[in-house]
Amino acid sequence: MTDLPNPRMLLLDRRGPNLYVTLNNPERRNALSGEMVEELIEVLDAIAPDRSVRTLIMRGAGGFFCAGGDIKGFKAGFQADADPRAIAASNRTFGDFLIRLNTLPQTVIMLVEGAAMGGGLGLVCVSDVAICDQHTRFSMTETSLGIPPAQIAPFVAERLGITQSRRLMLTGARFKGEEALKLGLVHYCEGNAVGMETRLEEVLDQIDRSAPAANAATKDIVLTSRHTDLSDTLDMAARHFADCMLSDEGREGVSAFLEKRNARWIVRGK
Amino acid sequence: MTDLPNPRMLLLDRRGPNLYVTLNNPERRNALSGEMVEELIEVLDAIAPDRSVRTLIMRGAGGFFCAGGDIKGFKAGFQADADPRAIAASNRTFGDFLIRLNTLPQTVIMLVEGAAMGGGLGLVCVSDVAICDQHTRFSMTETSLGIPPAQIAPFVAERLGITQSRRLMLTGARFKGEEALKLGLVHYCEGNAVGMETRLEEVLDQIDRSAPAANAATKDIVLTSRHTDLSDTLDMAARHFADCMLSDEGREGVSAFLEKRNARWIVRGK
Amino acid sequence: MTDLPNPRMLLLDRRGPNLYVTLNNPERRNALSGEMVEELIEVLDAIAPDRSVRTLIMRGAGGFFCAGGDIKGFKAGFQADADPRAIAASNRTFGDFLIRLNTLPQTVIMLVEGAAMGGGLGLVCVSDVAICDQHTRFSMTETSLGIPPAQIAPFVAERLGITQSRRLMLTGARFKGEEALKLGLVHYCEGNAVGMETRLEEVLDQIDRSAPAANAATKDIVLTSRHTDLSDTLDMAARHFADCMLSDEGREGVSAFLEKRNARWIVRGK
Repeated sequence: MTDLPNPRMLLLDRRGPNLYVTLNNPERRNALSGEMVEELIEVLDAIAPDRSVRTLIMRGAGGFFCAGGDIKGFKAGFQADADPRAIAASNRTFGDFLIRLNTLPQTVIMLVEGAAMGGGLGLVCVSDVAICDQHTRFSMTETSLGIPPAQIAPFVAERLGITQSRRLMLTGARFKGEEALKLGLVHYCEGNAVGMETRLEEVLDQIDRSAPAANAATKDIVLTSRHTDLSDTLDMAARHFADCMLSDEGREGVSAFLEKRNARWIVRGK
Repeated sequence: MTDLPNPRMLLLDRRGPNLYVTLNNPERRNALSGEMVEELIEVLDAIAPDRSVRTLIMRGAGGFFCAGGDIKGFKAGFQADADPRAIAASNRTFGDFLIRLNTLPQTVIMLVEGAAMGGGLGLVCVSDVAICDQHTRFSMTETSLGIPPAQIAPFVAERLGITQSRRLMLTGARFKGEEALKLGLVHYCEGNAVGMETRLEEVLDQIDRSAPAANAATKDIVLTSRHTDLSDTLDMAARHFADCMLSDEGREGVSAFLEKRNARWIVRGK
Repeated sequence: MTDLPNPRMLLLDRRGPNLYVTLNNPERRNALSGEMVEELIEVLDAIAPDRSVRTLIMRGAGGFFCAGGDIKGFKAGFQADADPRAIAASNRTFGDFLIRLNTLPQTVIMLVEGAAMGGGLGLVCVSDVAICDQHTRFSMTETSLGIPPAQIAPFVAERLGITQSRRLMLTGARFKGEEALKLGLVHYCEGNAVGMETRLEEVLDQIDRSAPAANAATKDIVLTSRHTDLSDTLDMAARHFADCMLSDEGREGVSAFLEKRNARWIVRGK
């Protein structure tokens, strides 16, 4: 079992194959400070190679998902001798984090309560399953501050398509859960927090039936396909197929199917 | 008129400009065996250059579209001396077939009755027009067998977008016709089999008004645009435009339009 | 203030930060003649570098958006000595225009009244915000004339996705406003022309709160992300972020936010 780091801005709770990660700076509405992002990267690096961690569930403390970048912190950039390269480098770090979270081999579920603003909305864009409720507020109002939604823009464009992304970003959009569902930003919009928990359990049951290494391979293929020549992607997919098929997991999965019994990796019951 | 092959696992029925292809192994729920895929490739290769075949209509025998890969066949891969390269190569062949079907110059319509599972769902993803009914079942449960939906994954990602694809594949999704319509997997979800036939006739009427070579050029441009530099795609599109414009078909089409009469290629009446 | 050209086929009306452009050849239903496209390019080139023009609003004269290509003009291409390269080059010019309009730094709003056919539908595909009403008609019937929707095809594929694009183009689709909304071709479908004007004012208010240079940077990032390596896009986004942050606009925007007052670029009131 992987040793988890001991972060200051995150709560970690390992329950069997699932790791619950809570952004925990509620006084700042869980804003993505440099420290919090660094701690998140440490957690991702720790679990990435570990197939016994099958799911990462992310939420925000205090019923609020994430307020995005730390705008008060931005003011530090205004001094006369501010170095644009340093500001760019710091901004770029967040993009690196989003790449890592997007491509994490584990299945990533986000429970988006309260609000997801700016960078917080960017987090939602790289989840495998996103659940909010009808009251959840979303916003991309960066340009009203005179700055672009820089690092999240490519992930938003991938998530929502370019047609909606350009409208939303250029009009400083604010919207709620039902609209987020229509836009394809989230997969489920429930009536309230209880409905979100019920949905989470349903999704965890589904992932429980999915083999860990096969899920990791699948995520790799899907994400690779978006920026790789089709033929190369299919070659890579074929190698993943053969590796999984000949693995203990693949043998177990096909045997269980033909014998009409549960595969060994199923831990949550039927 | 093209000589059609004489396949064992397919029924072929040429009716004027339309070729009806039925996957015909109902005892195995029309599973995509190596033999069936090879026969399908032969059919595609035979008709691809022939503009007198304007539409390919695909369905499954026995009211069941296609159960996907042949899982019992997979077990053969488990022996101790199994060669991962041979397994990968065999898997990759299916991807080649999907590329050919996706880029077939003819307009491809699929009637998805009963169920489309795994590789069968992959077929649906490369159709130009997909019609199901509310009872049709769809599934991508590969990872519950310990293997990734390898060759279909890039086509699913292109069809449904990455947001829905990652959720569906990583949770071993099962869903029905109405959901398939919402996801954009199919274009039409009818109440029953009769509704599907009515819709098919409507679509065939529409395609009948579309010029065969212009449709082939259009499909080429659209599919090329997804993996080619925009400027190169536009150059290629301009060449297609000039070729069609100066062809007998283009002269006939514009003349018919200006003379308010049917173009010569219309065979089904107005 | 930028000197605007004096076009024959367009009406130009500058109102503060907004430039209203009306396609003005109602007898030809505002068909995209070579002359009109050239004049549009002149307008775009004139305003592109000017951040005091923040929005371009495009509509058609006479309550009709745009009938697309000039089909009678096509007939000139039919003479025996027609040069396919000249026809291709003329066609390609329209693609160049679409690229310029798509990537214009200003936010582009289209009011799609009456109908948008062929090339007119292509225009809609490169807008940032598209508003129609329930009566607006859309069509892509090019292949019924024996020619492909050549230059618009890549923009349609980007706008609607490949799944719907291939069906619509290969079946010579005609549809109305509500369907255009479902397809994601437009962002808003109103009940009538009055509803369209109300929506326009709402959108202009939203854009008014968005900083001009930040919006231009955002549009650049989003559009670049679709055909550029993710890592390169994020690098470029980080440079835009630093530039905006250190600009007068960025300082003003963040200060106004922290001081809970309107930023200076807001001209339409709160």
